[in-house]
Amino acid sequence: MSRLFVVGTGPGDIQLVAPKARAAIQASTDLVAYGLYLNLLGEVCDGKNHHDLPLGEEINRARLALDLAASGKTTALISSGDIGIYAMATLVFELLDQQLQGKENHPEWLDVQIEVIPGISAMQAGASRVGALLGHDFCTISLSDLLTPWETIEKRIHSAGTGDFVVSFYNPVSKKRDWQLNHARDILLQYRPASTPVLLGRQLTREDESVRIITLDQLDAKDVDMFTLVSVGNSESRHIVNGSREWVYTPRGYKKKLGVEGSV
Amino acid sequence: MSRLFVVGTGPGDIQLVAPKARAAIQASTDLVAYGLYLNLLGEVCDGKNHHDLPLGEEINRARLALDLAASGKTTALISSGDIGIYAMATLVFELLDQQLQGKENHPEWLDVQIEVIPGISAMQAGASRVGALLGHDFCTISLSDLLTPWETIEKRIHSAGTGDFVVSFYNPVSKKRDWQLNHARDILLQYRPASTPVLLGRQLTREDESVRIITLDQLDAKDVDMFTLVSVGNSESRHIVNGSREWVYTPRGYKKKLGVEGSV
Repeated sequence: MSRLFVVGTGPGDIQLVAPKARAAIQASTDLVAYGLYLNLLGEVCDGKNHHDLPLGEEINRARLALDLAASGKTTALISSGDIGIYAMATLVFELLDQQLQGKENHPEWLDVQIEVIPGISAMQAGASRVGALLGHDFCTISLSDLLTPWETIEKRIHSAGTGDFVVSFYNPVSKKRDWQLNHARDILLQYRPASTPVLLGRQLTREDESVRIITLDQLDAKDVDMFTLVSVGNSESRHIVNGSREWVYTPRGYKKKLGVEGSV
Repeated sequence: MSRLFVVGTGPGDIQLVAPKARAAIQASTDLVAYGLYLNLLGEVCDGKNHHDLPLGEEINRARLALDLAASGKTTALISSGDIGIYAMATLVFELLDQQLQGKENHPEWLDVQIEVIPGISAMQAGASRVGALLGHDFCTISLSDLLTPWETIEKRIHSAGTGDFVVSFYNPVSKKRDWQLNHARDILLQYRPASTPVLLGRQLTREDESVRIITLDQLDAKDVDMFTLVSVGNSESRHIVNGSREWVYTPRGYKKKLGVEGSV
């Protein structure tokens, strides 16, 4: 039987890797992943065949994983975070789709038994480190305009503004892209206060983690890199300071001021 | 030292409970949770003091957890999914905030050392069971209008429509609420095709799990209950069928048709 596990291993902390993800890696002979992720996982990857491809080779990595699995090797395609969120899982199904449409010539892919195992995404790790930033309606927006026109992204940021969603920006900057994040900030400032709390979480849950809480008007791309999650509160999000500890939370609703209380 | 763990235990499958969540429960003497969640967790909860309060008593549950921890008992406040997403974490910080503002009379709460541990949320479990529905920008919207006016929720659904976000509805219906979901469907139908794939995931990753893929125009509140996640694809989400197996995925971007390829 051909098996492919599509596995998210969470933000970095080995203690946040689900047992199911670990078991899938253990059951595999071949691992396809960007090298850095495997280093974080440690000994569970020992004795496996590692297949590494550089960043930017995402489609080829998905192709390789399907090829390996189709050849009879139990394979795990691995990424950090949730592999279903802005990550490799969707590429596997894009390739299957292409094959089903006759645009690829790999009928053997269709016999691969695929299982996707979710992981904790960066926005969740970030929110937990500062309290409960995702306590009410939220959205995620990728600022990468390589596959999506900037006009579409810009429209989406306006929608996040009108809807007053908590917004987590994925791919906020890259080596080649640095202006989008400041542009996004300026759009959101049309809809919510300059004092809105913003989380900058770098290398979340990893040894060199840094977590900063700033305000929306202080957000600047120069303080952000590829390893940074940027989450912007909604108009009701609160930044509170208790001695040396500070927190950000987003209340559950908009009726609180009226003293209304209740459940779902 | 006063310690409070605020712990999300994922969608239900014990294999998706992070080791960090399990360790926090093990380190606690007192567990505050809706009883059903503890049943799912099994033996890790044995020998602990269980504090159960009925659904609807959310604020009192958070209060109890802070009180227990402040009294010196290492305590875990537990919910399924991610406790930071539409769940108990935000109530703990609301109470702290009230205390900091002098609106509560529990200065001892401020000495509690709080740690939030995220978990895999229902939308992630659902997306993984059908492929990669969350492969591109997405949002979550709670349809509960007990704490948020319906006008605010309605506006947000329109924003999800204009932004073409994949939308996951939390609290889609309850015993007392049944009309909001159909209303939300009708709004989204103004923005995306009737054929848009929709996931109905009930009791995800649990023994009695059921997963259905329907189209947006087929979505009806009568097929949905409190244990069902409803996730609606964006205008590009694809439903593909490979023999007896079907999948839904959302492609990474909007330039694919042009043949553009690349990375972040």
